[in-house]
Amino acid sequence: MTDCQGDVEGASTPMELYEKLSEQGVKVRSLKSAKADKTKVDTAVQLLLKLKMDYKQMTGHDYKAGCPPSENDAAPNNGPAADVAGEDDTVDPWTVSTTNAKGVDYDKLIVRFGSSKIDQELVDRIEKVCGQKPHRFLRRGVFFSHRDMHQVLDAYEKHKSFYLYTGRGPSSEAMHVGHLIPFIFTKWLQDVFDIPLVIQLTDDEKYLWKDLTVEECHRFAIENAKDIIACGFDINKTFIFSDLDYMGSSPEFYRNVVKIQKHVTFNQVKGIFGFTDSDCIGKISFPAIQAAPSFSNSFPHVFGSRKDIQCLIPCAIDQDPYFRMTRDVAPRIGYPKPALLHSTFFPALQGAQTKMSASDANSSIFLTDTPKQIKNKINKHAFSGGKDTVEEHRKYGGNADVDVSFMYLTFFLEDDEQLEKIRQDYTSGALLTGELKKILIETLQPMIAQHQERRKQVTDELVKQFMTPRPLNFNL
Amino acid sequence: MTDCQGDVEGASTPMELYEKLSEQGVKVRSLKSAKADKTKVDTAVQLLLKLKMDYKQMTGHDYKAGCPPSENDAAPNNGPAADVAGEDDTVDPWTVSTTNAKGVDYDKLIVRFGSSKIDQELVDRIEKVCGQKPHRFLRRGVFFSHRDMHQVLDAYEKHKSFYLYTGRGPSSEAMHVGHLIPFIFTKWLQDVFDIPLVIQLTDDEKYLWKDLTVEECHRFAIENAKDIIACGFDINKTFIFSDLDYMGSSPEFYRNVVKIQKHVTFNQVKGIFGFTDSDCIGKISFPAIQAAPSFSNSFPHVFGSRKDIQCLIPCAIDQDPYFRMTRDVAPRIGYPKPALLHSTFFPALQGAQTKMSASDANSSIFLTDTPKQIKNKINKHAFSGGKDTVEEHRKYGGNADVDVSFMYLTFFLEDDEQLEKIRQDYTSGALLTGELKKILIETLQPMIAQHQERRKQVTDELVKQFMTPRPLNFNL
Repeated sequence: MTDCQGDVEGASTPMELYEKLSEQGVKVRSLKSAKADKTKVDTAVQLLLKLKMDYKQMTGHDYKAGCPPSENDAAPNNGPAADVAGEDDTVDPWTVSTTNAKGVDYDKLIVRFGSSKIDQELVDRIEKVCGQKPHRFLRRGVFFSHRDMHQVLDAYEKHKSFYLYTGRGPSSEAMHVGHLIPFIFTKWLQDVFDIPLVIQLTDDEKYLWKDLTVEECHRFAIENAKDIIACGFDINKTFIFSDLDYMGSSPEFYRNVVKIQKHVTFNQVKGIFGFTDSDCIGKISFPAIQAAPSFSNSFPHVFGSRKDIQCLIPCAIDQDPYFRMTRDVAPRIGYPKPALLHSTFFPALQGAQTKMSASDANSSIFLTDTPKQIKNKINKHAFSGGKDTVEEHRKYGGNADVDVSFMYLTFFLEDDEQLEKIRQDYTSGALLTGELKKILIETLQPMIAQHQERRKQVTDELVKQFMTPRPLNFNL
Repeated sequence: MTDCQGDVEGASTPMELYEKLSEQGVKVRSLKSAKADKTKVDTAVQLLLKLKMDYKQMTGHDYKAGCPPSENDAAPNNGPAADVAGEDDTVDPWTVSTTNAKGVDYDKLIVRFGSSKIDQELVDRIEKVCGQKPHRFLRRGVFFSHRDMHQVLDAYEKHKSFYLYTGRGPSSEAMHVGHLIPFIFTKWLQDVFDIPLVIQLTDDEKYLWKDLTVEECHRFAIENAKDIIACGFDINKTFIFSDLDYMGSSPEFYRNVVKIQKHVTFNQVKGIFGFTDSDCIGKISFPAIQAAPSFSNSFPHVFGSRKDIQCLIPCAIDQDPYFRMTRDVAPRIGYPKPALLHSTFFPALQGAQTKMSASDANSSIFLTDTPKQIKNKINKHAFSGGKDTVEEHRKYGGNADVDVSFMYLTFFLEDDEQLEKIRQDYTSGALLTGELKKILIETLQPMIAQHQERRKQVTDELVKQFMTPRPLNFNL
């Protein structure tokens, strides 16, 4: 190879390559949203990943949508970057993918997104402030990144409280176990900090993005609310709302939406979300609707006209672009920036290269699955870090880092010691893949059965209560 | 001149010229919205008009934003176009200007917008169907263009009724006489057809476009509502709403907004309204909010869930782009297209090259002006079609076609014979400019005084009643 940039198909400057990359990103997204043939999508994704590596090689920086290279963005030696792991990761509100079987490189994501790592010091501090053992999601790095969490704790220690905001896009009736992660953690935060919570169901977003009617999306919102309520939220401290309903019932909420919409340009959402001129104007303006619940005066029935109560948003890291935008706008319209706690993705059964997706039934364990379905799916589909034969496994041991069953146990098995023993035994070869899967099956079956039992208790009347704008019980 | 395209500063192809024109259009709009120095704006507008003439000369077609020239768009002989009157006219929701002292060439506008002329046959038919003498605005071509009015009348004759929708952007407390035109005519339509009416006050739009707070825009909406109510609308048949309030009080309205937003792309609003990537996402999505009242199920308190009741929109022709978009979307979301009646612009005191604008106090007669102010403004500013000296005027006569006082009389003097006599006398020179102005002053002074008297009677309580979502009295 006489020219180290020879592979970069015709792009001779960082800017040219940046533009190729932006185009390819748009292409991948449009293929995906058009549900194009899988081979086509894969080919396009491969080229995208390759261009990203080329870009890193040429500029010395990661490609970042909306951030064109600067003039001195040519890597000094133009040689291959020492470590390009993590560069292959695509993480935005619509796509999560990586070529790494261990999953997305979250440390690199923190650097790329400019957030902060949840380190042991922060976990210890949360324990001290709330006076409770940290949730397993904190102990195990499921929630791994944050923005301004120290500020939230500083204020809380001075008896200045905050409120929680999380949400879900109701794209189907079926929720899977991965969808529970933010809600399980949010419930814990609500309990230990004793604070109000608002939950947004973005049925308008799903209508705009999917081939669904307004009525279907609204129905999915109500059905999903039942699963969310089944997580055990306190009705006296929780307000759940469908955008399609709440936007039309709260002039204060709409006022905040318009304020945000005035302070964000198309150029900005193009950079942040990769929208194009062919996108509908609903998609283009939607980010303001996901941003608005970050401001307390969007909920006058809860907070009156107070606009100074800080918001803490627990969510998966792919939602961060919405809140980077929100934090950018907040001071310009006189509101505090929301703080964030980011979780990792819940891996698909087939492996951590993608997240679990309700639209791919084989990748998911649904909250409606029977014990038998759970068993069969795990046995048949859960990607194994074990060796090909029992003999080899006993001799060389398995790889827990890429084993999906083990990953799921880190999410759902409460006992730290038991989890560590499983890891050791699997790594040593003492525990076989079938045995590991059995432990997971026996963890998930009762967990999901209990969820189903609690969901059955959720009446239409109870859903209505949770979704009625009303005062909540709390001291701020 | 050796080259007939020599003036087109460096543009050698229709596409290059088209791009120059698009850029210049953006420049003019941004100068205007930034309230730039008048000389700067004028220079930019002059260049825009010149480019438009050049474009017509080069391509044989009018320049149309969002419609680039096709390959065979070079005028066959490249010579000057035979008639470029009307090509200099800029008409969109934010700008109305022409170089012609008689005002915009409305016949050409009908061709450009693809609407239909309100001809004598249609005026006669309206008279027959409603059983009343046509309003002077119909008799005199103030409402000069329509879409689907025959369809509305066909249905009405078969006892299938319709509803009216008009509106106003409340950019200030002060309304001027020109603002009354659509309301005077809409009240007449409501009376003679006995039908319900919805009036939208786009306070959200004004917040997005102007340097105003949400609270200011909302206050202007309420103040403007008082002037509108003073026009004499029937409270049992009229619902007036502020977007900032109604969007947050009607889930059905928001559902229609989202439906429209899903079916319009950025490319489309860019073509129709000239938005750019630097515009805020609120502006980009706003057209859906002006479109939504065109569909009857946006008002469930009035029409229940019926979505099949046709809407008739009386408005100034500069609002047509919103409703071209609406009519394009309607069938795709299962709603009837709204019909339209378009009015001409109300000329500025300085002449028909621009419309009266509340932001230029010298160009306007406000509804709050005293009799003395009215007299002084007309005497001082109203552009005259008279000759320089009394002697010349007596000898050659005046030009009623460019005389602003005469134009205003066509709007407000009810008696056709009297108006025609004034025209003849002015044209012959029998009537002097001062005498013509006196007739106008004596027409406007009592009209505005009566308006002020009626407005005084409009209590806050009455405004609240008009603006409360409620059933209206009518048979559809």
